[in-house]
Amino acid sequence: MYKIGLVGGTGYTGAELIRLLVNHPQVKLHAITSRSEQGIAVADMFPSLRGFVDLCFTNPAIDTLAECDLVFFATPNGVAMKLVPELLREGIKVVDLAADFRLRDPAAWEQWYGCPHACPEILQQAVYGLPEVNRGLIKKAQLVANPGCYPTAVQLGFLPLIEQGLADINYLIADAKSGVSGAGRGAKVGSLLCEASENMAAYGVAGHRHLPEISQGLQQMAKGQPVGLTFVPHLTPMIRGIHATLYTRVMNKQIDLQALYEQRFVDEPFVDVLPQGEHPHTRSVKGTNTCRMAVHRPQNGEIVVILSAIDNLVKGAAGQAIQNMNIMLGIEEAQSLLVPGLMP
Amino acid sequence: MYKIGLVGGTGYTGAELIRLLVNHPQVKLHAITSRSEQGIAVADMFPSLRGFVDLCFTNPAIDTLAECDLVFFATPNGVAMKLVPELLREGIKVVDLAADFRLRDPAAWEQWYGCPHACPEILQQAVYGLPEVNRGLIKKAQLVANPGCYPTAVQLGFLPLIEQGLADINYLIADAKSGVSGAGRGAKVGSLLCEASENMAAYGVAGHRHLPEISQGLQQMAKGQPVGLTFVPHLTPMIRGIHATLYTRVMNKQIDLQALYEQRFVDEPFVDVLPQGEHPHTRSVKGTNTCRMAVHRPQNGEIVVILSAIDNLVKGAAGQAIQNMNIMLGIEEAQSLLVPGLMP
Amino acid sequence: MYKIGLVGGTGYTGAELIRLLVNHPQVKLHAITSRSEQGIAVADMFPSLRGFVDLCFTNPAIDTLAECDLVFFATPNGVAMKLVPELLREGIKVVDLAADFRLRDPAAWEQWYGCPHACPEILQQAVYGLPEVNRGLIKKAQLVANPGCYPTAVQLGFLPLIEQGLADINYLIADAKSGVSGAGRGAKVGSLLCEASENMAAYGVAGHRHLPEISQGLQQMAKGQPVGLTFVPHLTPMIRGIHATLYTRVMNKQIDLQALYEQRFVDEPFVDVLPQGEHPHTRSVKGTNTCRMAVHRPQNGEIVVILSAIDNLVKGAAGQAIQNMNIMLGIEEAQSLLVPGLMP
Amino acid sequence: MYKIGLVGGTGYTGAELIRLLVNHPQVKLHAITSRSEQGIAVADMFPSLRGFVDLCFTNPAIDTLAECDLVFFATPNGVAMKLVPELLREGIKVVDLAADFRLRDPAAWEQWYGCPHACPEILQQAVYGLPEVNRGLIKKAQLVANPGCYPTAVQLGFLPLIEQGLADINYLIADAKSGVSGAGRGAKVGSLLCEASENMAAYGVAGHRHLPEISQGLQQMAKGQPVGLTFVPHLTPMIRGIHATLYTRVMNKQIDLQALYEQRFVDEPFVDVLPQGEHPHTRSVKGTNTCRMAVHRPQNGEIVVILSAIDNLVKGAAGQAIQNMNIMLGIEEAQSLLVPGLMP
Repeated sequence: MYKIGLVGGTGYTGAELIRLLVNHPQVKLHAITSRSEQGIAVADMFPSLRGFVDLCFTNPAIDTLAECDLVFFATPNGVAMKLVPELLREGIKVVDLAADFRLRDPAAWEQWYGCPHACPEILQQAVYGLPEVNRGLIKKAQLVANPGCYPTAVQLGFLPLIEQGLADINYLIADAKSGVSGAGRGAKVGSLLCEASENMAAYGVAGHRHLPEISQGLQQMAKGQPVGLTFVPHLTPMIRGIHATLYTRVMNKQIDLQALYEQRFVDEPFVDVLPQGEHPHTRSVKGTNTCRMAVHRPQNGEIVVILSAIDNLVKGAAGQAIQNMNIMLGIEEAQSLLVPGLMP
Repeated sequence: MYKIGLVGGTGYTGAELIRLLVNHPQVKLHAITSRSEQGIAVADMFPSLRGFVDLCFTNPAIDTLAECDLVFFATPNGVAMKLVPELLREGIKVVDLAADFRLRDPAAWEQWYGCPHACPEILQQAVYGLPEVNRGLIKKAQLVANPGCYPTAVQLGFLPLIEQGLADINYLIADAKSGVSGAGRGAKVGSLLCEASENMAAYGVAGHRHLPEISQGLQQMAKGQPVGLTFVPHLTPMIRGIHATLYTRVMNKQIDLQALYEQRFVDEPFVDVLPQGEHPHTRSVKGTNTCRMAVHRPQNGEIVVILSAIDNLVKGAAGQAIQNMNIMLGIEEAQSLLVPGLMP
Repeated sequence: MYKIGLVGGTGYTGAELIRLLVNHPQVKLHAITSRSEQGIAVADMFPSLRGFVDLCFTNPAIDTLAECDLVFFATPNGVAMKLVPELLREGIKVVDLAADFRLRDPAAWEQWYGCPHACPEILQQAVYGLPEVNRGLIKKAQLVANPGCYPTAVQLGFLPLIEQGLADINYLIADAKSGVSGAGRGAKVGSLLCEASENMAAYGVAGHRHLPEISQGLQQMAKGQPVGLTFVPHLTPMIRGIHATLYTRVMNKQIDLQALYEQRFVDEPFVDVLPQGEHPHTRSVKGTNTCRMAVHRPQNGEIVVILSAIDNLVKGAAGQAIQNMNIMLGIEEAQSLLVPGLMP
Repeated sequence: MYKIGLVGGTGYTGAELIRLLVNHPQVKLHAITSRSEQGIAVADMFPSLRGFVDLCFTNPAIDTLAECDLVFFATPNGVAMKLVPELLREGIKVVDLAADFRLRDPAAWEQWYGCPHACPEILQQAVYGLPEVNRGLIKKAQLVANPGCYPTAVQLGFLPLIEQGLADINYLIADAKSGVSGAGRGAKVGSLLCEASENMAAYGVAGHRHLPEISQGLQQMAKGQPVGLTFVPHLTPMIRGIHATLYTRVMNKQIDLQALYEQRFVDEPFVDVLPQGEHPHTRSVKGTNTCRMAVHRPQNGEIVVILSAIDNLVKGAAGQAIQNMNIMLGIEEAQSLLVPGLMP
């Protein structure tokens, strides 16, 4: 049994990690930290976990975390980068679910997150934890930067087209719709039921922090060529789910897109390409680590439309983090993650 | 007091017409028809109307309808075209909220609606009822084809750019999100709360019936040039509202988009352009006839993003129909339609 | 045109007052105050009000408020009692939507609200603003305490039975379900969409602040006899609406309950008793000042079940406040309040 | 591996059985039937099951079902009673999730379900599958009548009080709130998102079919004394969950209710009594087989309030059916059923 630490257990991502870990047969939660809730039983804060976890929240002390084999950070952006260097020195493996280690360029971090990076020297050793792209590197990594929720849905959707040089990478559009849990468990007026339900709106059109992360990933797929991406996120009146609707011009109208997508993901345990003509529903992946997608070329025109659906808290956060953990610890990659979605 | 008839009063569009008409000071509901509910009191079917309407549903008899000054059709597609010619001969004004008279080309009707048009000779006299484009024609029209919900949100959003020749009309993308009331009051599994709530999905990507309607309208704005439009509708887990997110390449990066949009709509009572940098929320137009929009050019790039929000049952159906009625009958255009949205 | 002041315009109750007042033909909003949002345009905070109100939030200065004919307080509990005495001395009429003047006994206030009452001497002159019970007093009142949302639904439901001495007042049960807007616009974790949607739960079973208010009202109906009330509120996953399900033992099984209820409310513009056997839906009163109810005696037993539905923000708050204002100012009681519910 | 048959796999209860069975290590789905969907792949109808089940829907042929060790019926009321006798003769174990075998009295069946019972002689051998009451009988049963959703929540809530003779069984009130999935996957107007969301309403106050089932169970707990139960179900705007709020007079005010409830359920794997003063949330049991409850005596009065929350599709249907299956087949009772709720 591997010992697992969780720094930041009071948000939705942390709670989801706990939900997925308590029945994992090869790991055991050793410590769950929260500065604000120290001493409180985890199951008192989250009654859905009553009977599954006996731990209380503790302070994030390095010596306790150093007893772990792997530590997850489910903290706000900017917290992990202050603690991770010490854990790495202790030989602990780390999966950070925040943005601290996602951007390779510390200047980009500073531009988008508004403060200098605390450990720029470590950025190059961090592996971007999208297993469908970087599985080999993840296996050997000590530090994995778990992708953001939008970036996961968008990158997986564009992957087959871009890595084959089939997309017009100057004109990529990602129109993404997210459930409200993506905004976290913080008490914000905009996330109130009375504000966010029965409503649809875009936000951050001028520039969302996931834009540079997605662009960096797409550029890597495009073998380093710069990409022109327009990314518009929308707040959707539901709890879980991201639906990314992706548009680009296909460079070769003869290509069999359906076959391209099916073949690219045939061996991936967590990407499911729907049959031609279908549309993925976010609810079909609710509570699961699956990215379900479909590819369309309306009226046989130049524009390709890719539909990509994930659960933002699972494949977009905690599930992918556990997928990365499984890979890093040599556990079967899909362990404890293969379950049908909760429907309805 | 003008006498008003309503053919098809049992759906959401019909009920919304009644809601908006009962307090209109210059008109009076004379007959509300429904073949299936004949004899039932309207307020028994819709308890929200108790005390506001005393009528029972009647059969759609021409002689009763011929007593009206104006008749609304809120029937399924293909019904109005069988009754309208006779009403026109009787000198009655008609506003059809279905699709029967929206497409000028009878072949396009047949292609998208699966049956020959019953009165192709009348198509040319029908005026497309988008007041912001056709106000003058509506004033003189006997037959108005009330626009679809998606077409209203999309056309108003693209209008200033396209009519000024500023959009790359070969690459227009309309990613539209609609509340479930757009699917009507019919008992369909896909519209059940347990299917449609907590879910986001695209549909009809291969081709939705509103595509030819929108294309026809955009082409008219483009002075007859054909347009290349990709239209992807999504079913969104809320009752009312459409949010259209529109993308195109701007042909002149020097143009002041904010001023362009504000000036175009400065005299329109039902289009509200938000200040620079804002995002319209569908809930801000809930229950109202307003189209609220914003225009963005992310990172000062070539791509323009227009956000356009309406209530699909009001500006996207019943409200716009009453706006058209007001214009046709010489009533003040905004009569009974200027109310704040129901918030929250 | 009467001049109206509004103290506390940033919550849902305040916004709803504005929505209902902007189209009222006999009053004009003179000042809307908010300490925290001073200088901000009201329509910037609530885009649904763009075009309907030009005022900015101001500090709640007595001299400005003293220019008004009537001032509404939509402030948190405990605020109005500090400002109202001075306004009364200035001869201003006041409707307080908070709890400050609802309980006649200052000791009860202190027990349930946790601080001494600031002006206990004024409590006796305050009239409890339930027009169906106190219309005559409201007409002459200078200070009206607008009832709480739960108390409105529960008292109207029990009213015909209790005032006729037909209920076993030792065993009254009120099982009430409220939409989340009842919790206000404050940023609380429990009101987040991700916490409150897809969930049903009771709260405050040990004792909710509306209990003494309801008991006081029921006791008045019972001609001073003490009543035994069990009140259990539930947070329901919707924005607006209260559904109170009321249980008691009927003391005379021969009584025609349907006739009793219909006759009691026959002249009330805002109480609608449904035909025998029906069930009121909260959505049928959405956005309206109507209380819709039904009365049942299952299996002709001893237990009566009364179902009472209101919109908590309208008949349960802002609408009833305007109904009171109309009465106090000699305006037609239903002015600007008779509209059909927003359905669906 | 036990072979399992499922008759009626197209509703929510059937789909939920499949979801819970596919990862059960000791059973294997052998046949899933549906007359209407014969030949369709189960995973085509329910994309959430893609990759988990390869079966197609088949006709409900006795010979195929007779190859099974146990057959679930998730059919509409009145179907199972026609097929079950033959399966029993073949020695197959049966769990019926419909109402066919719940009422011991065939006259009561006929009264509430409107047709004569097809096999009244079998009713006496059917065991009512509430393990917390009948575990021993279930172990030896060939035919188990799986309880209804409301009856599960209500009976478990009243159980400790009534079996100890501590409740005034003449005045039992069960005010129950159910998510819309309780109405099934049938296409009914009342279950549409636009009808059922943003709404709260009671239904069936005059008499709901679960009333005789609950009464029968409570009477058994009361050692055969008749009980006076008022049962009011409400349709609540959420997908899953039942919250039952139960009221009765406690006959002995000295009793320690908290201890009574905790001790009664201390060994039950699927009943969780919350600490004193808390309130169960339905979302805390979403997707789980747990009944979470709390017991209150407001203001130390005579009235006890019990709050009982379940997932109507799990403990209220499919999960309890699998719990019964586990017991009947000698499998560990909680096998595959102990998972934390999906939160948020």
